[in-house]
Amino acid sequence: MKGVMPSDIREKMKLLDRAEIIHLGGGLPDPAIFPYEPLSDASARLWADRARAQTALQYAPSEGYLPLREWIAGYMTRQGTACEADNVIITNGSQQGLDFLAKLLLSPGDKALVEIPSFIGALRAFDAYEPQYLGLPEDSADWNPTDLAGAKFCYVGPDFRNPTGTCMSRKDRLALLDLADDTGMAIIEDGCYEQLRYEGEDIASVAALAAERYGSIERSPVLHTGTFSKTIAPSLRVGWIAGPRDVIRRLVLIKQASDLATSALNQMLLLDVVRDHLDTSTRIARSVYRDRCRSMLDAMEEFMPHGVSWTRPQGGLYVWAELPDGIDGAALAARALLERSVSIISGSAFYPANATNIVPKPNTFRLSFSMIPAAAAREGIERLGGLIREG
Amino acid sequence: MKGVMPSDIREKMKLLDRAEIIHLGGGLPDPAIFPYEPLSDASARLWADRARAQTALQYAPSEGYLPLREWIAGYMTRQGTACEADNVIITNGSQQGLDFLAKLLLSPGDKALVEIPSFIGALRAFDAYEPQYLGLPEDSADWNPTDLAGAKFCYVGPDFRNPTGTCMSRKDRLALLDLADDTGMAIIEDGCYEQLRYEGEDIASVAALAAERYGSIERSPVLHTGTFSKTIAPSLRVGWIAGPRDVIRRLVLIKQASDLATSALNQMLLLDVVRDHLDTSTRIARSVYRDRCRSMLDAMEEFMPHGVSWTRPQGGLYVWAELPDGIDGAALAARALLERSVSIISGSAFYPANATNIVPKPNTFRLSFSMIPAAAAREGIERLGGLIREG
Repeated sequence: MKGVMPSDIREKMKLLDRAEIIHLGGGLPDPAIFPYEPLSDASARLWADRARAQTALQYAPSEGYLPLREWIAGYMTRQGTACEADNVIITNGSQQGLDFLAKLLLSPGDKALVEIPSFIGALRAFDAYEPQYLGLPEDSADWNPTDLAGAKFCYVGPDFRNPTGTCMSRKDRLALLDLADDTGMAIIEDGCYEQLRYEGEDIASVAALAAERYGSIERSPVLHTGTFSKTIAPSLRVGWIAGPRDVIRRLVLIKQASDLATSALNQMLLLDVVRDHLDTSTRIARSVYRDRCRSMLDAMEEFMPHGVSWTRPQGGLYVWAELPDGIDGAALAARALLERSVSIISGSAFYPANATNIVPKPNTFRLSFSMIPAAAAREGIERLGGLIREG
Repeated sequence: MKGVMPSDIREKMKLLDRAEIIHLGGGLPDPAIFPYEPLSDASARLWADRARAQTALQYAPSEGYLPLREWIAGYMTRQGTACEADNVIITNGSQQGLDFLAKLLLSPGDKALVEIPSFIGALRAFDAYEPQYLGLPEDSADWNPTDLAGAKFCYVGPDFRNPTGTCMSRKDRLALLDLADDTGMAIIEDGCYEQLRYEGEDIASVAALAAERYGSIERSPVLHTGTFSKTIAPSLRVGWIAGPRDVIRRLVLIKQASDLATSALNQMLLLDVVRDHLDTSTRIARSVYRDRCRSMLDAMEEFMPHGVSWTRPQGGLYVWAELPDGIDGAALAARALLERSVSIISGSAFYPANATNIVPKPNTFRLSFSMIPAAAAREGIERLGGLIREG
């Protein structure tokens, strides 16, 4: 039996049906903004065309539906990473991309370098291949190639990563490429929130900076995962990995052995919708989540007691908070749920289990504003602040 | 880099656009019999109901959409394996079920027992976890628990398995349960062709025999994979694993880490269709494939030269043939394609790479009748027989 563990978050999500609770822990995209009409129309068009319906129902190529791979290559190119369809494999959301990259790169005991704290879904995907974790120091001045040598990859979420909502500077992105250069490791760049910037200037992705530095994606150490789960809808389960074509070819063999192919039906529906509607969907998502982010940060300013600090995200879906020393995030989460009907996620879930150079911070927790209108954010944060103040 | 290899079959399938070739190698279900109208109607109903559409697009539970799991539990129960929704996890087709079971049960170097020859997709799924293969002897009299001890599982396709099309007798299914009893290994039963019997009497699945023997699925060693790919359509990518609930719980953690969940949209569409249409779809599939199976077997009788032997399947999609000693299946496949425009699959692809107790038979090949109307079967087999006769 391998080292897969229950996810704190998914367990908490099962509480979602208890309507009186204010769920600051969740992090699901808001279903109110899914593009129902465009998907319904795309679906009707597909079923009305027997040839397309036949393609949609028959086994698809393991690498994915070519027109969608071409569209994604165009999207990646517009984002600064010039590439072609052969640089793209379709996965069941970016979660499967993370699993496949670990399957490709890790054998038991191999070192894996991860940001601290890290996306829990990535840690669970990597856990299955039994790595020895190393934490990437927060300050890039401490990225010593000697200390970090031997890692098979470094996993990062430069844009508003889960759970901190923070953004990696351009300088640090370039330093990460230096580190990859010095150590020979790959970089797994999780791009799942890259479209969800609400403030500030876009920063080129690590994939784009690498393509610029090396002149071509073919010589890049970066494997970039993407998804439509945050801009269109999660349950089409369509994401991708972009990288050098020889890596993509090896990933296609993994896809073939893992589940043959992603649903052609879903890939075709998605392509039809993103072609005409991705910009609109992204604009709506940014507008809704920008307001919710501000509401939550305003409530934090108003109700969090002295000694609590938190991130001020310019995008994404999350705020990460640090409590005064000695207050345990897990204990707070339990009391918040039981005594104040507020759900939060304890920060300890976001640290890998066996990292040698990491001291987890138990005095942390994660909030998400994605599903929380202003009034609920205010009410929830007031309750939570009150609880912390009481101690 | 792990031991995943290109699939002979998938590569050959890329030739499908060369229309003049008679493709006796393929094995795809015939898209002419997919239930387009029922799926189109189910889709229209779903998009017309905002609450259902919201469920279809939001993240789904990792274990699967509960009403579909309940339906599958009912189906398994009607097939003789009494079980409940908690005994069922939804996977992306049964291929993902095979991958997950190997991920759960195998560590590098562990022994895996497989029928010889075996489904190539299963071998590729298992390969990723680097097992040491053992071949299950063809004659159950040779199933010696001492020789086969230590295997983590035995993988079998009792009903019309790919590539042989043969069926395991009730006596052998019971002997397999004895073997599992004696060795403590699990049994992975691939049920993907169990609905496609064209002649003869149904035989209870190994899962059903185990549930009968042990009084409950909870005490059964059998993990049964199922799919709707052969009866409804492959590209919905919906299959399942049924087994004891403590095993299913561990598989849910693997699903969560691998790709979070199968598309809720596809699960809901499928449920809508199987409820009213599975019997009809299955009846149509049986009728079409039964005729094609007969046509191909008739053509084999007429055109295969003396010294060639083959299976006479009572179901499934495949015929397995053995050439006289000294004729190589791979060389024949290459010449058949180049000189006679007939595709077949060399038998050597269906043997695991490193098994210690197996001598692969290079003088074998696989045919499929699933997409081949009678006239094409006759023409293709005549060409192939002529080539073998020429030598």
